[in-house]
Amino acid sequence: MCIFCKILNNEIPSSKIYEDDFCIAILDISQATKGHTLIISKKHFSNIYEIEDEVLSHIHVIAKKIALMLKKTYSDIKGFNIIQNNEPKAGQTVMHYHVHVIPRYENDDLKIESVDHSDLYDLKAIQKEIKKSI
Amino acid sequence: MCIFCKILNNEIPSSKIYEDDFCIAILDISQATKGHTLIISKKHFSNIYEIEDEVLSHIHVIAKKIALMLKKTYSDIKGFNIIQNNEPKAGQTVMHYHVHVIPRYENDDLKIESVDHSDLYDLKAIQKEIKKSI
Repeated sequence: MCIFCKILNNEIPSSKIYEDDFCIAILDISQATKGHTLIISKKHFSNIYEIEDEVLSHIHVIAKKIALMLKKTYSDIKGFNIIQNNEPKAGQTVMHYHVHVIPRYENDDLKIESVDHSDLYDLKAIQKEIKKSI
Repeated sequence: MCIFCKILNNEIPSSKIYEDDFCIAILDISQATKGHTLIISKKHFSNIYEIEDEVLSHIHVIAKKIALMLKKTYSDIKGFNIIQNNEPKAGQTVMHYHVHVIPRYENDDLKIESVDHSDLYDLKAIQKEIKKSI
């Protein structure tokens, strides 16, 4: 059974800060930054491809609620990254849908780095390929 | 007026791949990876703190739809990061709520790096502080 299902079944302890019928919010053990929270669906879905729309919607409304709670708790928070990873290549380590709510602080060490590839890709060609596949 | 409002008003061109009453999806000019898409609310909200729950929910259901569309278009996609940034410190560059749908490929150059701070923080103390502020 997956580690998040075990947490949901209270077989593994966690630091829960919120719970309702559809999800729980727990502090991420790694604390990428102080207050780093995971919102986890109660029902097991592996990822965004599988999750029911109703649960997906609800979890993101709760992500907003958690961000506002954390902002109220720590007045030095300077922003938030809301991150949801799918499949190992994207950094998903537990194959049970979850959303990271990561507060940002002045001198934190979280890095999200992307390269500008505007020279590499023809947007109109990509747009055409996507529309063709619909 | 903000650049996304200008795009929504067709004052600035974009590569739109989806549109409904609440949002549009356009290809991000920077193409962090091939197919990198932004979902933008039609109504102007600066960030997650402000956005209406109904629009927030809807946009994330559309993020799922876009991910599935992109997967159908490019069979070499190996995952997705769904990222939503709030405030400049978190990498938000346009102060109009938007969600990044970023496909991942075997040898792409997107980096999301965080440090494990489990030794630094006492989860029970943080949990207590958050609960006290609710």
